[in-house]
Amino acid sequence: MRTQVAIVGGGPAGLLLSHLLHRQGIASVVLESRDRRYVEHRQRAGMLEQGTTDVLRGSGVGERLDREGLVHHGLELRFGGTGHRIPLTGLTGRTVTVYAQTEIVKDLVARRLADGGDVRFEARVVEIDPAAAGVTYVQDGRTRTLECDYVAGCDGFHGVSRPAVPGLRTFVRDYPFAWLGVLADVPPSTDELIYANHDRGFALHSLRSSKVSRLYLQVAPDEDLAAWPDARIWSELAARFATGDGWELREGPITDRAITPMRSFVAEPMRHDRLFLAGDAAHIVPPTGAKGLNLAVSDVTMLAAAFTERYASGSEAPLDGYSASCLRRVWRAEHFSYWMTTLLHADPAADDFARRLQRSHLEYVVSSEAAATSFAENYVGLPAAP
Amino acid sequence: MRTQVAIVGGGPAGLLLSHLLHRQGIASVVLESRDRRYVEHRQRAGMLEQGTTDVLRGSGVGERLDREGLVHHGLELRFGGTGHRIPLTGLTGRTVTVYAQTEIVKDLVARRLADGGDVRFEARVVEIDPAAAGVTYVQDGRTRTLECDYVAGCDGFHGVSRPAVPGLRTFVRDYPFAWLGVLADVPPSTDELIYANHDRGFALHSLRSSKVSRLYLQVAPDEDLAAWPDARIWSELAARFATGDGWELREGPITDRAITPMRSFVAEPMRHDRLFLAGDAAHIVPPTGAKGLNLAVSDVTMLAAAFTERYASGSEAPLDGYSASCLRRVWRAEHFSYWMTTLLHADPAADDFARRLQRSHLEYVVSSEAAATSFAENYVGLPAAP
Repeated sequence: MRTQVAIVGGGPAGLLLSHLLHRQGIASVVLESRDRRYVEHRQRAGMLEQGTTDVLRGSGVGERLDREGLVHHGLELRFGGTGHRIPLTGLTGRTVTVYAQTEIVKDLVARRLADGGDVRFEARVVEIDPAAAGVTYVQDGRTRTLECDYVAGCDGFHGVSRPAVPGLRTFVRDYPFAWLGVLADVPPSTDELIYANHDRGFALHSLRSSKVSRLYLQVAPDEDLAAWPDARIWSELAARFATGDGWELREGPITDRAITPMRSFVAEPMRHDRLFLAGDAAHIVPPTGAKGLNLAVSDVTMLAAAFTERYASGSEAPLDGYSASCLRRVWRAEHFSYWMTTLLHADPAADDFARRLQRSHLEYVVSSEAAATSFAENYVGLPAAP
Repeated sequence: MRTQVAIVGGGPAGLLLSHLLHRQGIASVVLESRDRRYVEHRQRAGMLEQGTTDVLRGSGVGERLDREGLVHHGLELRFGGTGHRIPLTGLTGRTVTVYAQTEIVKDLVARRLADGGDVRFEARVVEIDPAAAGVTYVQDGRTRTLECDYVAGCDGFHGVSRPAVPGLRTFVRDYPFAWLGVLADVPPSTDELIYANHDRGFALHSLRSSKVSRLYLQVAPDEDLAAWPDARIWSELAARFATGDGWELREGPITDRAITPMRSFVAEPMRHDRLFLAGDAAHIVPPTGAKGLNLAVSDVTMLAAAFTERYASGSEAPLDGYSASCLRRVWRAEHFSYWMTTLLHADPAADDFARRLQRSHLEYVVSSEAAATSFAENYVGLPAAP
């Protein structure tokens, strides 16, 4: 069997790439190791930059996003018991949208199938040949080969694509904390996200809809989920969000909980021969800045444009420039995610000097228009690097 | 003998405080352990915020500053072999002025003596009583006592004032590098300061006048000055300032050289009973952001205003608020100095991830107007905290 672009991984990056290529008349096959139900239900990010919603909308998969997505114009930084609003739209002219990654995946799967797209679930890739552009995978207990012009590795941090690239240079930073994230069936206690810095640790109040709250607590990297019964989670959240004016956190049934480690990782370059890495397969960020999904969308948008040029004119220049172009944006997001993470978390190794600097930094960000704008323009997403 | 305010230390902070008090009719005595020649010739900082020149000019000691000071409207960040100008005035509407601390000291000594001020050189303070407001000092081999209403500790980081305060809380950060600074009799190779980030280490091209260059090299904290003959200094400077377009560094006779360790330090609070700390006696910063002298001027300006209110109306409220007011500005400067230091220096312990972050951060500062404005507003000096 043969296609133009073999896409390894059926998460948002792989599915969107397949969709964007289809719109340009380029054939692709998506190989996803999990089943459809699994990929449509795993909880991931949910904050979309305007550039991301522009891509989804512009490529015709924004209908439900437009109906159900919650457009946000600001967020709150809370520290020292006081909240400070960062008017994202006022400072940058741009918005962000709350719409869960899992919903994007559902939209893309439905659209690919409706368009006759070839998305194969439970198809586990076991070998990628970057030189010959062939992919070997196992489906229904049988080993098959997919021949192609190019391979797109969109199979995430633990996928098989990145190990198929020889001589990659990698950059890693682990953080001395993790996030305990919960979904709760309770209307959010806030209209806009609250990022809280507290001596007890960072906390984030996000949301999925007008009826579902998404809440996070900084915990130790080796924290045991069993040590966090519901009552402890709610009381710890209440302590970290507490204000001087009696702000109250609504509680409700917790329907999902997980502990996510925090790591920064970049692999360079993002291309080897006929294999192109995109999204988490090439780089991950701590979730603080909500950049992971947005970077994946940015990568595959650039990759789709490069393939389009290749098939339209024969020029390989955009494909040759793919890695360097992506990496400029990737490193900006890596720096911002690191910056925002260290600005807001309680580092267990911090000395008194570091704690005072952090407080001065927070006070500066909420009192200087230039500093708030710098924060906001990164948060809503900078324009694609030239 | 008795005065209203005993001032320990005859550097720029102590002399300016004495001058500002005199203008309000408040008597003071300045006790300086060194001789006049020494204090008028030690090489220190030389970059004045507009707020600092406003204070000097407004209090009538800006005549030579206005004649000889070099007003700067921008500076250059140089990395990856390319220079990027930060238009300080364009971004903030403010300027900075190159005028050496040693010249300010000369102006202030001359002015205090012309005004009949009591400035005692080679008068070594050996004891301060913060409760009774008495200062014991040794001059001409004799031990004397100066009684007073208040004591101002302006005797620098190694002075006796800070140890006289019981129970101070201190905050410290040492850096894994130092600066080798030289004065050279050669016209500057640049009109504006150049802050260079290089794999070999940070370098700074500053200037004292149209005929004298001031140059700095990042070196190890335990570096031996003897290991740096002139030829090595010039070749290392040339390597770190090198650009792709053949920029050239002019060389000339080196007339002064010294190695300065890099440290951040803050003592809290800045007042105990009748003793008030100001300037380096209370806090020091690494020299990267040129904040040390400017903070000292800001401290004593606030202290002079508080004493003025005390003697005019009897109210001690401004004196009670002195420490907290100063510390807000101090911590902003501490954070900025730390930020600018880590942005520009080569940390010997940095891993590949940290180096990539630093480069992305530098590229961001010179490409985002918000980020450049944030840098510039700190560099030229933020307005006094409310």
